[in-house]
Amino acid sequence: MDAVTPIFVLTMGDPAGIGPEIAIKALLQQQAAADYRVAVIGDLSSLLPAADGLGKAAYIRVVTDIRDAMPGVIPLLDMKQISPGGYRVGEASAACGRASYAYIMKSIELAQKGIAAGVITNPINKEALKLAGINYPGHTEIFADATGVKEFSMLFYLRGVGVAHVTTHCSLKQAIDLISPARVLSHIRLLNGAMKRLGVGTPRIAVGGLNPHAGENGMFGDEERCMITPAIELARNEGLHVSGPYPPDTVFMRAFRHEFDGVVSMLHDHGFVALKSLDFEHGVNITIGLPIIRTSVGHGTAFDKAGKGIASPDSLLSAISAARLLHKNRDINR
Amino acid sequence: MDAVTPIFVLTMGDPAGIGPEIAIKALLQQQAAADYRVAVIGDLSSLLPAADGLGKAAYIRVVTDIRDAMPGVIPLLDMKQISPGGYRVGEASAACGRASYAYIMKSIELAQKGIAAGVITNPINKEALKLAGINYPGHTEIFADATGVKEFSMLFYLRGVGVAHVTTHCSLKQAIDLISPARVLSHIRLLNGAMKRLGVGTPRIAVGGLNPHAGENGMFGDEERCMITPAIELARNEGLHVSGPYPPDTVFMRAFRHEFDGVVSMLHDHGFVALKSLDFEHGVNITIGLPIIRTSVGHGTAFDKAGKGIASPDSLLSAISAARLLHKNRDINR
Repeated sequence: MDAVTPIFVLTMGDPAGIGPEIAIKALLQQQAAADYRVAVIGDLSSLLPAADGLGKAAYIRVVTDIRDAMPGVIPLLDMKQISPGGYRVGEASAACGRASYAYIMKSIELAQKGIAAGVITNPINKEALKLAGINYPGHTEIFADATGVKEFSMLFYLRGVGVAHVTTHCSLKQAIDLISPARVLSHIRLLNGAMKRLGVGTPRIAVGGLNPHAGENGMFGDEERCMITPAIELARNEGLHVSGPYPPDTVFMRAFRHEFDGVVSMLHDHGFVALKSLDFEHGVNITIGLPIIRTSVGHGTAFDKAGKGIASPDSLLSAISAARLLHKNRDINR
Repeated sequence: MDAVTPIFVLTMGDPAGIGPEIAIKALLQQQAAADYRVAVIGDLSSLLPAADGLGKAAYIRVVTDIRDAMPGVIPLLDMKQISPGGYRVGEASAACGRASYAYIMKSIELAQKGIAAGVITNPINKEALKLAGINYPGHTEIFADATGVKEFSMLFYLRGVGVAHVTTHCSLKQAIDLISPARVLSHIRLLNGAMKRLGVGTPRIAVGGLNPHAGENGMFGDEERCMITPAIELARNEGLHVSGPYPPDTVFMRAFRHEFDGVVSMLHDHGFVALKSLDFEHGVNITIGLPIIRTSVGHGTAFDKAGKGIASPDSLLSAISAARLLHKNRDINR
């Protein structure tokens, strides 16, 4: 292998979900001539039956060093976390929660050491994590904690549009308290930088409001005037192409009609209501602001579909593409 | 005319917007044999040029009593609010704001007297209302005030799914304070009754949460446990087919995939983000809980399209259909 070929790691995700299956489907679409490699971090005891079900067992290669990953096959770093009979496909269990967490921690270690060019994550199950005593609302917070980062953003990337969330996994009351000019500005900057690395020359960033109708000129709340508008002005002074605050109910629609490249969403359930209404399955979840690259499928473990051979690898393929772009353009800082 | 043929009134909306044009287009689709009539409440000085632009001026008939409205033409109760040169198409003005408010008040009067079977409203412009010194966020509040009603709900009806909003035009902070078991229960009941009148035998009602992930079992807020779940239980005890609270980011998608007939949305920008992301133009806005029937187009005045002959009457036709259904089934109370 050429030493400079970037190698990404793909966590297998919860063994009981669709992660193993879509990993196999996606990696078999890699071309032998590809200028990158992807290695799975997971368990042979789970990946092998999934590959077998698809008639693709012969493609699995266990590696002890991801740098030995080859294209055209499915390179696996076997983490030996679970035994074949230790879980049931389609069910949350402590064993699977523990295993999927171990894959993540290994992937972060490899990326931090510079061995992996970036991490792509398959879905984990929150219930399983909880059964294993691991209390995280999702990947984003695990990655932020493990890399010691405080300024990060959950970016959802769909049809060329990026949506960054200023607040995510907290109560609505706490979310309101978290809105500050500094926090909004930080998310504008993070989104702008990410969109540039994703290939947009001068991203047109729209900032959504917090209140209905973006406060209707102060009639329905003053956060737009006191917190959001000042941040937009500061970002403009830095030369960024930013506008708003726009009414939350139309800003996403306008972006998906190509008026903007990115939207800064104040609430989890502004951005995600729009994104999930538009296209539940095909987006990519990206954590921006980390010292390492991390992209993810946009969907969950889909326990109801697991083990049936019917899961689509589309979102995972998009997540791999996004990781490659972010790596290729990694020198663009803002 | 048969005395029992229901006659609906259609407000012309802001004269400078697309209201006059879509009124003409929609009413010319009425069949002569139709079992209902629709009369426009507006200004001849605005409706005539719009009809002329469409080559349909000959169809306008001025009536002094809406009971004289005939099918196959465009019956108009001429309110003589504006002079031909008194406004410019596509621009907000005090004159147009005043006029559109006068049409609404007349329509409410006719419905309250039982002369009109219901009111269908065309879009008004908030800026124009404001210039006229009329400070309402929209039709809903005007109708509630004029009919003296306190328990009402803004229902958006799209593709057979109804979305009722527990809070609408207030700040997010106020919205959180407004969430109470009584208020949630009232909106469940209003939605259930409306969906039955719209033709659903036993409506399957989903209640959305307030917080991300519907509070994630209390981790992200306790409104679900303290306010929303008790209301759902009370509604169930009344025999209603209600479930939830569901995460706001997926409940709408699930409804539009036919899992539910109606969704109770805690926030303006849960329901409207979903609805506007899905289909900005074709929904119907219905005020439920009023002593009179009121349906409306889902879109705005579209000043950029006004006077060009390109506006679609689809949403208006849906609003007329909805008004007819609500009238036909008006004896179904809950």
